Amino acid sequence: MVPIDRREMLKLSSAASLATIFSSADGQPSRSETHPEMGSVPLWEVFEIRLAGPSTGNPYVDVQLGATFSLGHRTVQVDGFYDGEGSYKFRFMPDTLGNWNYTTASNAPELSGKSGSFTCVAAQPGVHGPVRVRNTHHFAYADGTPFFPFGTTCYAWIHQSEDLQQQTIESLRNAPFNKIRMCVFPKHYQYNHNEPALYPFERDAAGKSDFARPNPAFFRHVEQRIADLRALDIEADLILFHPYDRWGYASMPAEADDRYLRYVLARMSAYRNIWWSLANEWDLMRAKSAQDFDRFFHIVEQHDPVGHLRSVHYSHTMYDYSRPWVTHASLQTAAFESAPTWLAAWNKPICFDEVQYEGNLNSRWGNLSGQEMMRRFWLGVIYGCYVTHGETYLDPKAAMDENTTPTIWWSHGGKLNGTSPARIGFLRRLLESTAHDPGQAASRTGLTAQSLSYYLNASTVSTTGTDAQDIFYFFDYHQPIYYEFPLPDGTYMAELIDPWEMKTVPLSGTFSGKSKIRLTGTPSQAVRFRRT
Amino acid sequence: MVPIDRREMLKLSSAASLATIFSSADGQPSRSETHPEMGSVPLWEVFEIRLAGPSTGNPYVDVQLGATFSLGHRTVQVDGFYDGEGSYKFRFMPDTLGNWNYTTASNAPELSGKSGSFTCVAAQPGVHGPVRVRNTHHFAYADGTPFFPFGTTCYAWIHQSEDLQQQTIESLRNAPFNKIRMCVFPKHYQYNHNEPALYPFERDAAGKSDFARPNPAFFRHVEQRIADLRALDIEADLILFHPYDRWGYASMPAEADDRYLRYVLARMSAYRNIWWSLANEWDLMRAKSAQDFDRFFHIVEQHDPVGHLRSVHYSHTMYDYSRPWVTHASLQTAAFESAPTWLAAWNKPICFDEVQYEGNLNSRWGNLSGQEMMRRFWLGVIYGCYVTHGETYLDPKAAMDENTTPTIWWSHGGKLNGTSPARIGFLRRLLESTAHDPGQAASRTGLTAQSLSYYLNASTVSTTGTDAQDIFYFFDYHQPIYYEFPLPDGTYMAELIDPWEMKTVPLSGTFSGKSKIRLTGTPSQAVRFRRT
Repeated sequence: MVPIDRREMLKLSSAASLATIFSSADGQPSRSETHPEMGSVPLWEVFEIRLAGPSTGNPYVDVQLGATFSLGHRTVQVDGFYDGEGSYKFRFMPDTLGNWNYTTASNAPELSGKSGSFTCVAAQPGVHGPVRVRNTHHFAYADGTPFFPFGTTCYAWIHQSEDLQQQTIESLRNAPFNKIRMCVFPKHYQYNHNEPALYPFERDAAGKSDFARPNPAFFRHVEQRIADLRALDIEADLILFHPYDRWGYASMPAEADDRYLRYVLARMSAYRNIWWSLANEWDLMRAKSAQDFDRFFHIVEQHDPVGHLRSVHYSHTMYDYSRPWVTHASLQTAAFESAPTWLAAWNKPICFDEVQYEGNLNSRWGNLSGQEMMRRFWLGVIYGCYVTHGETYLDPKAAMDENTTPTIWWSHGGKLNGTSPARIGFLRRLLESTAHDPGQAASRTGLTAQSLSYYLNASTVSTTGTDAQDIFYFFDYHQPIYYEFPLPDGTYMAELIDPWEMKTVPLSGTFSGKSKIRLTGTPSQAVRFRRT
Repeated sequence: MVPIDRREMLKLSSAASLATIFSSADGQPSRSETHPEMGSVPLWEVFEIRLAGPSTGNPYVDVQLGATFSLGHRTVQVDGFYDGEGSYKFRFMPDTLGNWNYTTASNAPELSGKSGSFTCVAAQPGVHGPVRVRNTHHFAYADGTPFFPFGTTCYAWIHQSEDLQQQTIESLRNAPFNKIRMCVFPKHYQYNHNEPALYPFERDAAGKSDFARPNPAFFRHVEQRIADLRALDIEADLILFHPYDRWGYASMPAEADDRYLRYVLARMSAYRNIWWSLANEWDLMRAKSAQDFDRFFHIVEQHDPVGHLRSVHYSHTMYDYSRPWVTHASLQTAAFESAPTWLAAWNKPICFDEVQYEGNLNSRWGNLSGQEMMRRFWLGVIYGCYVTHGETYLDPKAAMDENTTPTIWWSHGGKLNGTSPARIGFLRRLLESTAHDPGQAASRTGLTAQSLSYYLNASTVSTTGTDAQDIFYFFDYHQPIYYEFPLPDGTYMAELIDPWEMKTVPLSGTFSGKSKIRLTGTPSQAVRFRRT
């Protein structure tokens, strides 16, 4: 778990120490194959092999290449990729300490049979590895540190001006979010009609794409942003397909879809902070079927050697989240009351990734009050799930002007204007503080929603597993003047929480058994019990 | 439609004029059978015949009696009842102007073959008759005046001290409610353990009830309260059975149940302001089945000559509201989003009679904030339905004291302390003002929920039928800075409404077609359009 206020420090220390290990013309982590014998790579960083090879014909299609990394009896296969101008690369994220050997293979002789080794050394401070499912319904980093997703949404931020992208990065640095939903492809939708600076495929003079020729500059740009997020300890929930398209990326032939996926997987799987989101609103993609997405999942499973989290998001028709290749559900609904059923049916974590957005748009999905957005985060957590933020504010002064081109966080990034992020950060800090004992962290990942009884004023939630220590109550629009809390075994300290005012007030004394406690008698209050 | 602020005036004028027509020792409307030839009775008042008869044996069981009232070719059968001390009564509510004749019949010779006549004359000012279903999903008084139910809940108010009952009546006089859910039988439940002053049946020294011997004083008391409500233009939604019982009234034998129903029907059907609620939470009555309630409905249908509204209320398991003898649904849920399905399935009005209560209790059902209670009224109306209020506040100073016996509106009556009633009154006045053109009122009863589109920020609602004139939007927790309203044919004036602040702000100009209107960008706002 990385507390929010450590981000700045971590970014500085990571950047400094990585610079001594990796060298890269474009500022990305990389490892020249000309010095394999010198290499030592920290856990969960990117080791990169660069080789020169053929540049005639269509190297993206003609050249097959891969590498085998081995440590003792274990071998890991990774795909290489063509990065343009005769340059070929292989990327690998070591997940185990020790001495790794590698050998390349290719149908191009100059890319084949190259071998070397490096030592995987201890992780940089604050680096915990990729996020995995943990305790059935929850998440943790690879080192066991609990990860509570508190995501936001900036679908097309990497396709805006460089100034705006830098502003987004600065906003994220100061925001409470540790996951961001973002698209690889540019987006065509209401309020978002600009052309991207870079296109994912080569285009002819008439703007026709050649889906067999990726544009390496485009993908290097995506990677740069993923690396920027990694430096901020933010998971990139990377959306691979989406329906809001005017360039043809939503309706490529199956062969092109699959080749695109293989290319992304070969380039980016070594970035530890990636989650694969197969699509935003897959069911609105008219050229694709559920079977296409089954196939996409299989490709991702087979060609991502890291095994990043995998899901897909829908508009009206759910993908079947019970399928074994889906690691977690990515829902578009605020039906939190269905969560117990879904958690039990799927045995996977649930991210309520689209619960509508805080904003003031003309559209139902984009005009929640800040209070309501905050409320939805609390409800999601109380149901043992996770919620994603989005913000859609028009500047009131220009709202009625048809000719303005607004900058809206949910699509473009930029600045956050809403009232909910501060409250979301407050909730995140509350949850993270339930797991701040390092020795206990691994066994106390995640939340468990408890008895959702009709006669309870609120649901309870606690850190797991068998050893619940913290219990949260959220009273929503209920306003009891007192409440009899049925505490499980143990002695507890308690505090009143005002989620909107972001204040906690400790109650004097300790509590055990059925505990009658005076409350404020006002709505939107919460209580936390901590076992002593 | 009786505007709220006319109540006081109506009460005074009714009382004054009724006194010249009826004479009654106990202050109730009545008509002595010794002067039938002098009689003139206004529409929808109570005509009463009193006869002396046998007082030996058990007259409640032994004596059968009824009367036939006729007007031209029409005859109406009414049951008589024993009122104790050798006194027998027949009550009749005339619903048609003209000269009515009557004849009694009985197995007791002194009660049989008595005949007479009276003239039914025009209704008293402000009297509109019993409430009926109108336009499928809505209500109107018998004279066609629209009736929008805005009910409250005081289950056991008539079983409290006389002082408290009078305080309740004064509270109701100043409250916005035109319907009240109330029990015939006393109630045994949390916060309500007092013995009633009167019992519905004779009891022996050990407190054992004789269900074959009603207590006339008890039922006269119930009638007095119904008459008090009638004077305030409040419908008595009279609950005939309920599970919260320690005296045996919830588990009488079937024969006793049926006899009790017949007795209530004979006594009270002539009160125009009664709705029959067969039970509160019928499914929690362990001694009763759904078939018992089917039978109760049949008894009510057959022995209520006025044909008052009939429903039954549940806790978890709905009674089948599609059955033909149910006139409207009486729900315990706040699932307003299901209303369109239910309205279409049942083709009856829906009263969301229990949507939880404004208050501060320890129980989930009794601690809504005033804002949430107001919100539920707006949602119900927007879905083309009706909502009932309840209030459950403990005095904060005494809330933690186990030994206090609080007075809580929902059970005892007393004073209203909440913030929602004023807002409910504001909404009621808004709706009633949609029908204030007397010439149009009859054809414009009720509300119609319109297109509940995903892309609409809010549902619309309008006065019916084919001639919608008023359209309401309620934006709930949505806060658009502007909205494009798709107005139906016509030209409209518009006003912004703040439901909590109870303010309306007229917008300048008129609107037609798709109308883009600047809004406040704050939550919980509404808009009304009125066709010009």
